[in-house]
Amino acid sequence: MQKLYIIKIGGNVIDNPASYRQFLKKFAEIKENKILIHGGGKIATEIAKKLGVETNMIEGRRITDEPMLDVVTMVYGGLVNKNMVAQLQAFGCNGIGLTGADAGVIEAQKRPVKDIDYGYVGDIVAVNDKQLATFIDQKLVPVIAPLTFDKHLGKILNTNADTMASAVAVALSGRFDVHLIYCFEKKGVLSDPTNDDSVIANIDSQTYNSYKNSGAINKGMIPKLDNAFAALTNNVAEVVICHADELTEVVAENKSGTRLTLKIQ
Amino acid sequence: MQKLYIIKIGGNVIDNPASYRQFLKKFAEIKENKILIHGGGKIATEIAKKLGVETNMIEGRRITDEPMLDVVTMVYGGLVNKNMVAQLQAFGCNGIGLTGADAGVIEAQKRPVKDIDYGYVGDIVAVNDKQLATFIDQKLVPVIAPLTFDKHLGKILNTNADTMASAVAVALSGRFDVHLIYCFEKKGVLSDPTNDDSVIANIDSQTYNSYKNSGAINKGMIPKLDNAFAALTNNVAEVVICHADELTEVVAENKSGTRLTLKIQ
Repeated sequence: MQKLYIIKIGGNVIDNPASYRQFLKKFAEIKENKILIHGGGKIATEIAKKLGVETNMIEGRRITDEPMLDVVTMVYGGLVNKNMVAQLQAFGCNGIGLTGADAGVIEAQKRPVKDIDYGYVGDIVAVNDKQLATFIDQKLVPVIAPLTFDKHLGKILNTNADTMASAVAVALSGRFDVHLIYCFEKKGVLSDPTNDDSVIANIDSQTYNSYKNSGAINKGMIPKLDNAFAALTNNVAEVVICHADELTEVVAENKSGTRLTLKIQ
Repeated sequence: MQKLYIIKIGGNVIDNPASYRQFLKKFAEIKENKILIHGGGKIATEIAKKLGVETNMIEGRRITDEPMLDVVTMVYGGLVNKNMVAQLQAFGCNGIGLTGADAGVIEAQKRPVKDIDYGYVGDIVAVNDKQLATFIDQKLVPVIAPLTFDKHLGKILNTNADTMASAVAVALSGRFDVHLIYCFEKKGVLSDPTNDDSVIANIDSQTYNSYKNSGAINKGMIPKLDNAFAALTNNVAEVVICHADELTEVVAENKSGTRLTLKIQ
């Protein structure tokens, strides 16, 4: 099977122009098949504020009411995604910006209301792996915004980019040798959150559970790591969590970052 | 050659939710190959105002400075384009939202400054007809926002949707039997601007020139008609200008609107 890199770039990297530009250049240089999935960044919150749209968060998650849905559709699907594609084109990378709605690549359903009404948030129900594979076969590079769609409502839905990256990786693992890389503003999973150099080089599912129980891993990392281990359980070959600056080392030299693996039997 | 409808939908239709929804439903029902190209609508101006971005117009054309480029990228490429695609998906039409940057389908260059500096406005230099034809062959329906890109600058550029529709029609006329339809809020080209029913059913290039010279045609229509006749001169089979409500009649019944043809020899 051919190698496929699925690379998720966090919002904090997008917010830093110099680092962001370098990241896109490095991404463009990867010779293998690749997909880029991006987060949002602070800019959605800033634009919402200017437009008089209130940002409501519950347990660290944005509540997406109708006005906020418009803001994320504009910012993630338009401003961030299209500028990213234009910059990649300048670096010789034939990007194609997509939300889940485009060519129906990632279908979701509006999250049912239980204790909390998250609003227009999408839980992924299907990834069109055939369509994504067709784009890749044509040497196009999908650049995916954290937006899905509900085909019954005909609505765009807001979806967490980490979850999307994991779902896309799993869906394509039957067709490609998938390597999933989460790039963010830290060098990896840290054993000491106050020390940026305390990167844990390798975590398997057993050590992950013990870290989780002991509280050694920063709470904010847990959803990302849960997603990552779920991907590994579903035939994704490798998951790496690393600094956006270290993409080349991770891809070309197989070093840097935190590498996740299932428990070695 | 297979038939291909290239349909341009004006901003004024997008601004009217009921009419817009009906239009999308009718567009979705067209069985032949098709491409949708959309304008912007008032919403860009409204959002710019809320964000404190001033709208500067010279001779009816928007000046696209950097803050305005961000606004049109958000609104045309994100809000309008993605909601349009999601709605088309609900109507069973497999739309794929594109700007010129996506898969490099429409390349432009930043307009050189002569008397007026239009800012980040793109003059089209190349349409990737092969890529668009590949999408069509895959039964995808390109939904194109009025944005192009400069591959040297790595920037999105603002481009007039009428001009884009004409350029895309011409580029694809070597591969398809192209029918270009401009849908807007009037029933066609009017002989009397104060009478919405004074539609001129047929205009050839000779009568067009006489209408132009006599001032019988509304000035605002001239760039649209110039584009249309340029397309006809370049092997586009047919150009129709019609009301968005009449799309089905124009496509399925070959009536309504104003039909443009070259001078009959």
